[in-house]
Amino acid sequence: MDYLTLQHAQKILNGVAHRTPVLTSRMANEAMGCQVFFKCENFQRAGAFKFRGAYFALSQLPPKIRKRGVITYSSGNHAQAIALAANLWQCPATIVAPTDAPKLKMEATKAYGGEVILYDRFKEDREAIAQNLALERDLTIIPPFDHPHIIAGQGTCASEFFDEVGDLDILLVPLGGGGLLAGSCIAARQLSPNCKVIGVEPEMGNDGQQSLSKGHIVRIATPKTIADGAQTQQLGALNFEIIKNHVSEIITVSDEEIKETMRFLAMKMKIIVEPTGCLAAAAALFHRSNLNASKKKGMILSGGNIDQATLKLCL
Amino acid sequence: MDYLTLQHAQKILNGVAHRTPVLTSRMANEAMGCQVFFKCENFQRAGAFKFRGAYFALSQLPPKIRKRGVITYSSGNHAQAIALAANLWQCPATIVAPTDAPKLKMEATKAYGGEVILYDRFKEDREAIAQNLALERDLTIIPPFDHPHIIAGQGTCASEFFDEVGDLDILLVPLGGGGLLAGSCIAARQLSPNCKVIGVEPEMGNDGQQSLSKGHIVRIATPKTIADGAQTQQLGALNFEIIKNHVSEIITVSDEEIKETMRFLAMKMKIIVEPTGCLAAAAALFHRSNLNASKKKGMILSGGNIDQATLKLCL
Repeated sequence: MDYLTLQHAQKILNGVAHRTPVLTSRMANEAMGCQVFFKCENFQRAGAFKFRGAYFALSQLPPKIRKRGVITYSSGNHAQAIALAANLWQCPATIVAPTDAPKLKMEATKAYGGEVILYDRFKEDREAIAQNLALERDLTIIPPFDHPHIIAGQGTCASEFFDEVGDLDILLVPLGGGGLLAGSCIAARQLSPNCKVIGVEPEMGNDGQQSLSKGHIVRIATPKTIADGAQTQQLGALNFEIIKNHVSEIITVSDEEIKETMRFLAMKMKIIVEPTGCLAAAAALFHRSNLNASKKKGMILSGGNIDQATLKLCL
Repeated sequence: MDYLTLQHAQKILNGVAHRTPVLTSRMANEAMGCQVFFKCENFQRAGAFKFRGAYFALSQLPPKIRKRGVITYSSGNHAQAIALAANLWQCPATIVAPTDAPKLKMEATKAYGGEVILYDRFKEDREAIAQNLALERDLTIIPPFDHPHIIAGQGTCASEFFDEVGDLDILLVPLGGGGLLAGSCIAARQLSPNCKVIGVEPEMGNDGQQSLSKGHIVRIATPKTIADGAQTQQLGALNFEIIKNHVSEIITVSDEEIKETMRFLAMKMKIIVEPTGCLAAAAALFHRSNLNASKKKGMILSGGNIDQATLKLCL
């Protein structure tokens, strides 16, 4: 995956995906000890950056193939994104989702016209289920992160970010399977070559940190964390190739830090960001000593899909 | 107050006030039955549009006069805005505020360096208190809405809005004392002459609606409403002159509708808007029949300052 593909994705997404706003806040600058910028993908269509990759991936399928339909596996934002993108491309979408997926995200997926097929996260293999269904129904699999078009699409978020704020010293990116992080690397290398790109994942799901330090992909058990979008068990192969070459560090944050960050963003910046979407900001708020050298930091707030009850609990 | 003053305000505010983002949402379009745009002043400095007028008004004082300090009366966002603007202009700010003013807003006012003097809203006259203090301490009064520079400053919000989205069929504006509404009229007349400008106030505080229908300013008792920024007892004289000539209608909404709108904006659009800031959107959500003819509607979400406990209650 190269920058040319990312540029192509940007063209395709033009006028379809939102060019989400970048917010600044004096209070955030003070709390984080430097000048900070927030790229607000919680305002993206379907509530998260995932729409970028999903729409671009579908755009790259030959029309005849696309018409037959697509299938994916996801517990949340990628499911919604594929359902919405398929709706816009007027093709059927099937989503294999765990029984414990956030209700709100599954409802939205169905509302966009997606067919949801449930599986038991702790007993069954979602990729095997999807592969069987794909064969049976003649569908194309669009995986949630391990795919060049998904990475290119997600990378448009960082490229818009640099386009708006110029060079950054540090870019902090939430890390689940590595689609957003790998895409951000491609964008940073081209647009702000001296920018350090840092991934942030939940303490309980630090497979990315382990993988980076060991030099190979480490698989873990499904982590228990409030950051439901980062409950992936391992990075994508393609994603890891890019990440290991360009990411300088992976930081982990606790669920308590995530909740505190959610409150900060809600009360001080007036925005609702879901737990996974708070990862990067939590690193900047609570791990300042690791990031001190930086004068200008950018953070991707990756999504805003949280149900009312959880939000009330967190506030 | 004319458009030239507004343009001057825009120049002064350039790089000082945030050019706040305009958000769109498919779900909001569906819920409101037309294409809608939200101008997000909840992201403005000090959390509300009020900073615009406050900073511009201070900029227009002769430096020697400004240096002696300013005084105002306000229960909330104007107090914070004057305190922040005075901080930036490095002059003292005194704020006469009611004992029942929102705690959060008073704390922020003090944090910006403002001196808060409390009075009893139901027994004392805030303007008289401010006038006495102004004489005693040689301070300039900057009223919250009845002032040409305040109106011009607040008008920059609508002028940025038209600049970004082009012509609108209807512009819905929260109405308290009339600073934002009068400023929006001046901007609309120049930039989108066919746009209907509509004010929205709480049912319990419909002095604006009464004033518009009777053709003169009607004064009411301090209204009891969750929209604490619209608890004004009467419109400003200068504001009413502009409003009666340019506003086509004033709509009222109930506190229940305001709370429902706050939930909608939080859960569907991921933004936190204070009760007063929800007025315009509440009209679009719950009084569609009055607004049906419109194809393209703009709404100003005027502020986001709400304390955690009230927010939790409303969600």
